[in-house]
Amino acid sequence: MKKRIVLALGGNALQRDGEATAEAQKKIAEDVGEMIADLSKRYEVIVAHGNGPQVGNILIHEETAATEKAPAMPLETAVAMSQGQIGYWLTQAINNAFLKEGKTAKVATVVTQVVVDKKDTAFKNPTKPIGQFYSEKEALKLAKEKGWVVKEDAGRGWRRVVASPRPVDIVERKAIEKMVEDGIIVIAAGGGGIPVYRTKILRRLKGVDAVIDKDFAAEKLAELVKADIFVSVTAVPNAYINFGTPEAKALEGVSVEQAEDYIKEGYFKAGSMLPKVRAAVTFAKHGGVGVITDILNLKDALAGKAGTIVEKK
Amino acid sequence: MKKRIVLALGGNALQRDGEATAEAQKKIAEDVGEMIADLSKRYEVIVAHGNGPQVGNILIHEETAATEKAPAMPLETAVAMSQGQIGYWLTQAINNAFLKEGKTAKVATVVTQVVVDKKDTAFKNPTKPIGQFYSEKEALKLAKEKGWVVKEDAGRGWRRVVASPRPVDIVERKAIEKMVEDGIIVIAAGGGGIPVYRTKILRRLKGVDAVIDKDFAAEKLAELVKADIFVSVTAVPNAYINFGTPEAKALEGVSVEQAEDYIKEGYFKAGSMLPKVRAAVTFAKHGGVGVITDILNLKDALAGKAGTIVEKK
Repeated sequence: MKKRIVLALGGNALQRDGEATAEAQKKIAEDVGEMIADLSKRYEVIVAHGNGPQVGNILIHEETAATEKAPAMPLETAVAMSQGQIGYWLTQAINNAFLKEGKTAKVATVVTQVVVDKKDTAFKNPTKPIGQFYSEKEALKLAKEKGWVVKEDAGRGWRRVVASPRPVDIVERKAIEKMVEDGIIVIAAGGGGIPVYRTKILRRLKGVDAVIDKDFAAEKLAELVKADIFVSVTAVPNAYINFGTPEAKALEGVSVEQAEDYIKEGYFKAGSMLPKVRAAVTFAKHGGVGVITDILNLKDALAGKAGTIVEKK
Repeated sequence: MKKRIVLALGGNALQRDGEATAEAQKKIAEDVGEMIADLSKRYEVIVAHGNGPQVGNILIHEETAATEKAPAMPLETAVAMSQGQIGYWLTQAINNAFLKEGKTAKVATVVTQVVVDKKDTAFKNPTKPIGQFYSEKEALKLAKEKGWVVKEDAGRGWRRVVASPRPVDIVERKAIEKMVEDGIIVIAAGGGGIPVYRTKILRRLKGVDAVIDKDFAAEKLAELVKADIFVSVTAVPNAYINFGTPEAKALEGVSVEQAEDYIKEGYFKAGSMLPKVRAAVTFAKHGGVGVITDILNLKDALAGKAGTIVEKK
């Protein structure tokens, strides 16, 4: 029986050098498509992916050009739009990669809602900047009109900030699990998923403007569909301690305890390597194998010969 | 065993009175969600839907606010974005409808590519207006720059027109069929599907800017997944002959031959009732039951007590 793997693809797997046209992004998706087609020979594959630059551009377009007749979509719906967009590019690339070998792909993108807790402390301190830059005056006006939280962003202007809560459940998880069991490669939880919460009494689903970390969402999905391996596919071959210094050291095999010590010692950058290591550690704690590597080293990492591999001792 | 049904939801199933905010559209989706939840008790359900107003607004936003760093997405990718958007609203509504009865829904939206023939004569005579209105000068400039075909639209200004080719295959059909067999309600082929064609030699998939009629796409899907019933869910309870005149007559049970005669006699309006009747006839010719009705009469129509029902004699 094939082992089950969940990949969390970083943003650079779809956009390079800020080239944001559909053509440029589809071109890059082709490499990803071939990697996934190859991987699917030996594994059941689920692919999650980031959407930072894509949802950013969607929001800029929606907000800049909004009119009464064509109102702007909120962030949660914009995430759904980016799932359609990127999911389409990836499924098409995977289809074409199979065709190269004269085969037909079984691959589908599932629009995915990820449940967060309305009581998550992240909602009290929104930190994730999204969408376009505004002047201070505009930003404060929008904050008043729309109930946004706005913050000055590193001297570049003012932006809206939203919460980045932890994923607690994935609405489509049973459908996704069934699909994988049926031999379908599934693209899911794109952009960390469409953020939704459950209302108090009726437990109804309701969208909320927030951004869920794609590594955390992918790790949660890996848990829920009982995957064997979770891989955060990023721009570097390994996680490092002392990254960017002469003492930089690539991490290879790491125990959960070691990785947690490194986290405590502050070796990993928030919003960058930290969530990847955290996700790998969480998955390893649940008994799986957590991997951090880049596309080039993925195959070797899965053979235990490259990448950072976190496991329970 | 449950019969398998494919619904093609008209645009009015999601937008009324031009209310285009996400909130307004989600509200209307709730009614659709309850209808589908109810239907799924007795049928295996696949839902296709239109996207006219939604993709129109996406294109307006993308094109009006495009910059070099945030370029506009092409129509084919905009269709994918609208599938994410509307699919999210519908799956959430279906989830919440199940919750009302204390149940958990198994429902998922699949981003769907629909294959068209690059030799379809529709590409020689694009007729479907899309996106915003331009002045004649702007329109002719865009036509030159982007290779668009533009036309004057009923005195309201100039617009881009694209081809509306016939669907010939659905890339995700096997995944969709598996999902339905597994008891999952599937939202698929939204907006008639993302239009793609196969390249000549390598048969690779490639997106093309076009608009596929959602009734034709849904009918093709119904054929491919071996559905028993195809329903075009529209704003009126029946198809009519002499519609809008004192001799108007609602069609009830109709044979394929009768329906084809009515089509030849020009009783149905192009771009409105005509594609629905054509889709129902095509499905009936393949041995299924083709139904045209509105949401209110859907249940009765499936019991043979309302709607227009096209069957082989």
